[in-house]
Amino acid sequence: MIVGEQFLLLPGPTPVPERIVRAMSKPVINHRGPEFKEILGEVTEGVKKVYRTSHNVLIYPASGTGGLEAAVVNFISPGDRVLAISIGVFGDRFARIAAEFGAVVDKIDFPWGQAADPQIIRDKITRDVNHEIKAILVTHNETSTGVCNDIKSLRQAVGEHPALFIVDAVSGLAAADLDMDEWNLDVVVSGSQKAFMIPPGLSFMAFNDRALAVYDQNCNHRYYWDIRAGLNYLDKGQNPFTPPISLYYGLREALQMMLEEGLENILQRHLGYRRLVREAVKAMGLDLLAADANASPALTSVIAPAGMGANRIRRAMQEEFNIVMAGGQQRLDDVIFRIGHLGYVRELDLLSVLAALEITLIKLGYPMEPGVGAKKAQEILLKIHNN
Amino acid sequence: MIVGEQFLLLPGPTPVPERIVRAMSKPVINHRGPEFKEILGEVTEGVKKVYRTSHNVLIYPASGTGGLEAAVVNFISPGDRVLAISIGVFGDRFARIAAEFGAVVDKIDFPWGQAADPQIIRDKITRDVNHEIKAILVTHNETSTGVCNDIKSLRQAVGEHPALFIVDAVSGLAAADLDMDEWNLDVVVSGSQKAFMIPPGLSFMAFNDRALAVYDQNCNHRYYWDIRAGLNYLDKGQNPFTPPISLYYGLREALQMMLEEGLENILQRHLGYRRLVREAVKAMGLDLLAADANASPALTSVIAPAGMGANRIRRAMQEEFNIVMAGGQQRLDDVIFRIGHLGYVRELDLLSVLAALEITLIKLGYPMEPGVGAKKAQEILLKIHNN
Repeated sequence: MIVGEQFLLLPGPTPVPERIVRAMSKPVINHRGPEFKEILGEVTEGVKKVYRTSHNVLIYPASGTGGLEAAVVNFISPGDRVLAISIGVFGDRFARIAAEFGAVVDKIDFPWGQAADPQIIRDKITRDVNHEIKAILVTHNETSTGVCNDIKSLRQAVGEHPALFIVDAVSGLAAADLDMDEWNLDVVVSGSQKAFMIPPGLSFMAFNDRALAVYDQNCNHRYYWDIRAGLNYLDKGQNPFTPPISLYYGLREALQMMLEEGLENILQRHLGYRRLVREAVKAMGLDLLAADANASPALTSVIAPAGMGANRIRRAMQEEFNIVMAGGQQRLDDVIFRIGHLGYVRELDLLSVLAALEITLIKLGYPMEPGVGAKKAQEILLKIHNN
Repeated sequence: MIVGEQFLLLPGPTPVPERIVRAMSKPVINHRGPEFKEILGEVTEGVKKVYRTSHNVLIYPASGTGGLEAAVVNFISPGDRVLAISIGVFGDRFARIAAEFGAVVDKIDFPWGQAADPQIIRDKITRDVNHEIKAILVTHNETSTGVCNDIKSLRQAVGEHPALFIVDAVSGLAAADLDMDEWNLDVVVSGSQKAFMIPPGLSFMAFNDRALAVYDQNCNHRYYWDIRAGLNYLDKGQNPFTPPISLYYGLREALQMMLEEGLENILQRHLGYRRLVREAVKAMGLDLLAADANASPALTSVIAPAGMGANRIRRAMQEEFNIVMAGGQQRLDDVIFRIGHLGYVRELDLLSVLAALEITLIKLGYPMEPGVGAKKAQEILLKIHNN
């Protein structure tokens, strides 16, 4: 018998803290008045801190995919050659958006479950002696596989080549390390329903002056996503179009929580989740899709035991415990299940979920002593708490 | 001394009922699970009822302007000739979006404060014997002036001409009469923060099979707004991209409230607001921008007394009473102020606002006996309540 609310362990949307829910319940105000101007200024500065950038940040009323489209239509012109680095579903999606808007896309696919190899990118870029490549698209945290790209090394591999370096950090920002200015990233897109802990509906796009110079020469069609309108209105303390005010209330509260905790502590916390979940799952004898070196701090992809089917495990977890995990997408459907551990999760939540996973696996016939995974999780936590 | 919350009298965003705020506070769920599928099915059917259509409705994570862009990129191809009928700022915006995406736009401007004349449209359409015009863009309720177009007559004026008839009903739907199927409208866009009473962040687009056939031939670039993806995912009970789940909770509650009240009653209620506000303002000796015949049931544009300045009145209303009214846009800036009366407003709210307006005008030096407008409002209400 299931009681209570869903136990959400997706890689977004993530649970929303009560503080944020309460903040979102405030009455709607005039989006062209002084109160909203103050909120917009505050959250824009807060989001910049999370991006670690002193450059421009715009907030769109949209899903994360809207932010990816914004990056394409503002910074890539039809006919531009684009190098798309894909390690999964979302890398493919970014490439497809660029192609849809007229770019000539050269996509390099790495095997699903692996990160992009900077050396291969370096070789590719080095061969482009005439600088025909105008933009490089890359995923920070690939949600479909649970792999984090080494964005810093990939950026270094591009070196002095003038192509814009555009990062999809929708699910990665504030869960996995990313330092926009220090790493010299030109455009970085993110979203609200991941490590920002608020419901879906806002997308963020940061871009530097190099990107702005490219925008000035851009000839793609755009209206809703046009950064010029966004920047002009931001100067007035407004959005060009009516902003989702309740989500802005939530974002302001979330940023306060994030700055109270400290960005470095948030990243460390996510690394702890990763270690906890991976070690416990390994102790259960299950295989992980991603290698340790490239595993995401935001989610863990677990390969279902042979013959069991990942979706059967997910169904049982939901039916028995009301725990919602994500499945595999496309060719990973029924092969993996994905445990989200980003944003507002607690070690206690993960302890109980791992214990429930053991019970479920055993119930489905997987040969295992109950407790091996849970014990390992306790040992990891003991180490984390002893530090 | 101002106490309490802002008294919001904008033509959107509008106040949000407590029932809806509470509904929006529910925990976020899996947007690819059975619970969300049920919500999506329910709200899509509910929105269809408000549109009075049996055709397709898609819900976008976006502002209303996003819905207008969706209408353009799905149903208008680059090079298409488009007839844009503008009676104000939002008519101009719709025309500009079409031009931005490559349409050859022929814009007919009617004086601000007036509705479009169906005879002029009929003449224009009749002259297009080769059917070069592929789409007609028209605003239902022009928020910048407080004028409602006679959509039914405009549609009839187009007759059998095959151009798609595309309506911006962002601020008008469910406040002013609109019957999509009965009036034979092909595409109608609306938004959440108006008569739907929920915070901004959702845009709706309804389209019929004629529009779908045009879509099949369309060659505009699009990804985020692509109706094919929207329809395919809707079949699975999902959105292509992560939906703003909390706003969906709000929309479900709002639709329940709207269907409890009944669409016809809602429209009558708005007509009552219009009469109440207009008669009271006239009794104060002030002029209205729109003539009675075309005045919007959603908002009323009032011309400030000579020499007083509309923005001074708005500032005083906010400083003295915490009442937020909208100003004039572009050439109407400081000329008019706009009293929003759509969605979740009550007669009591309007009574107090009209009384406060009198006090404010007198304080600013306008020669008037206190009470003439308030008394007129009471008389109108007495008539409405005697019916």
